[in-house]
Amino acid sequence: MTNVVIIGSGNVATHLIKAFNSNNKTNVIQLFNRKGISLEGIPATDNYNNLLPADLYLIAVSDDAIGEVSRNLPFKGRLVAHTSGSVALDELSPENRSGVFYPLQTFSENREVDFSEIPLCIEAEKEEDAVLLTNMANNISRQVYPVNSEQRRSLHLAAVFVNNFVNHLYAIGNTICREHELPFDLLKPLIAETARKIKTMSPEDAQTGPAKRNDQTTIQKHLARLNEDSLQKEIYKLLTKSIREKS
Amino acid sequence: MTNVVIIGSGNVATHLIKAFNSNNKTNVIQLFNRKGISLEGIPATDNYNNLLPADLYLIAVSDDAIGEVSRNLPFKGRLVAHTSGSVALDELSPENRSGVFYPLQTFSENREVDFSEIPLCIEAEKEEDAVLLTNMANNISRQVYPVNSEQRRSLHLAAVFVNNFVNHLYAIGNTICREHELPFDLLKPLIAETARKIKTMSPEDAQTGPAKRNDQTTIQKHLARLNEDSLQKEIYKLLTKSIREKS
Repeated sequence: MTNVVIIGSGNVATHLIKAFNSNNKTNVIQLFNRKGISLEGIPATDNYNNLLPADLYLIAVSDDAIGEVSRNLPFKGRLVAHTSGSVALDELSPENRSGVFYPLQTFSENREVDFSEIPLCIEAEKEEDAVLLTNMANNISRQVYPVNSEQRRSLHLAAVFVNNFVNHLYAIGNTICREHELPFDLLKPLIAETARKIKTMSPEDAQTGPAKRNDQTTIQKHLARLNEDSLQKEIYKLLTKSIREKS
Repeated sequence: MTNVVIIGSGNVATHLIKAFNSNNKTNVIQLFNRKGISLEGIPATDNYNNLLPADLYLIAVSDDAIGEVSRNLPFKGRLVAHTSGSVALDELSPENRSGVFYPLQTFSENREVDFSEIPLCIEAEKEEDAVLLTNMANNISRQVYPVNSEQRRSLHLAAVFVNNFVNHLYAIGNTICREHELPFDLLKPLIAETARKIKTMSPEDAQTGPAKRNDQTTIQKHLARLNEDSLQKEIYKLLTKSIREKS
């Protein structure tokens, strides 16, 4: 049984606590957060000096606080891992053995997630720590990958494209619908199918539309509908150009 | 029972034929295509003069051929509808009564679609034809909307953002993964969750990420990873700017 202390009280921390708690292979023995709030019946502290001995201290706080939290830990030589996509392994304090346990998913407060489907990216300074983190990951997910800091940074960048930027294109679709008194629901089946398609096709094979076909008639009709100097128009032009260059 | 002739042999025509054939309320009596190829046991012709009398002639051919096909029909005063998102009602020949029967979905050759979930956008010159098209649509879909030509054009533009452009962002994610020897599979659960989220949240509420948080440290790290003068870098900057302006 692996004993873990989880530091942080945000969405990632909360979902990880629930995931570990749902099987009996990883024992979350203590939580640390600024208010000392207990969750899922696990005792909590707000005092670094009260931290219990554990096999792993998992830091699930905002990216810019990870380094500081790791330097605040009042012990040496123990395994300390963070859960961030964009923070390198060596940003953790060198006083302890460092590791990464990065769940590649977007977490929202009120949405349940099926952790078994979430890719977990593992990295550790020492081989035996990589084994411990990998075993813990295998207990809650079917998708566990060794990913080094350099790769993880790229993965985080790719995630911004397929998650944050994609969602913003949904928002533009929503704006266009609203402006023309159309319900956004009209677009939802198309959005679902577009995402479903790439489960079995490469995005390159799945690409369709006027840019791919170089259908200038439709492209010009679309551009004429977008306000001059609007960001929507710039986005339309730039993404069309980018699809053309890949075609 | 409504008798229909379907003109065209592409993905939209094929999927419509199957959808109508799967219930016994719409009778597809004949197909027209250049090679006179029969599908699903329905007789076909390649000769306009052999077209049977019908309640509706449904033109499911490429956008730039719709006008010409409608002008080739050797009769007058009958109901003729097209299935395109970007062609106006009045681009059909005025010799017949015109209508639109636009399924808002992306169709691929080898993918089954559940037509009951596909929004059908209906428009007609005459009220009684709108009723006929709406009834036909209700027989195969649970989502039927009256959408005029002006709205349909905007809808088609919105669809390019949430389908073609979104898929291109998936392709960029795939490229970044490949360049760093990471499997694209790592991103698939994130892609699925991003699409799932907006079933119940508005895209504005679902927006997360460094641009939304104005996390300049992460934004600068990401920009530093993208090649100078690359389109990926331009896209990153432009979409970040657009998210900031909406925030």
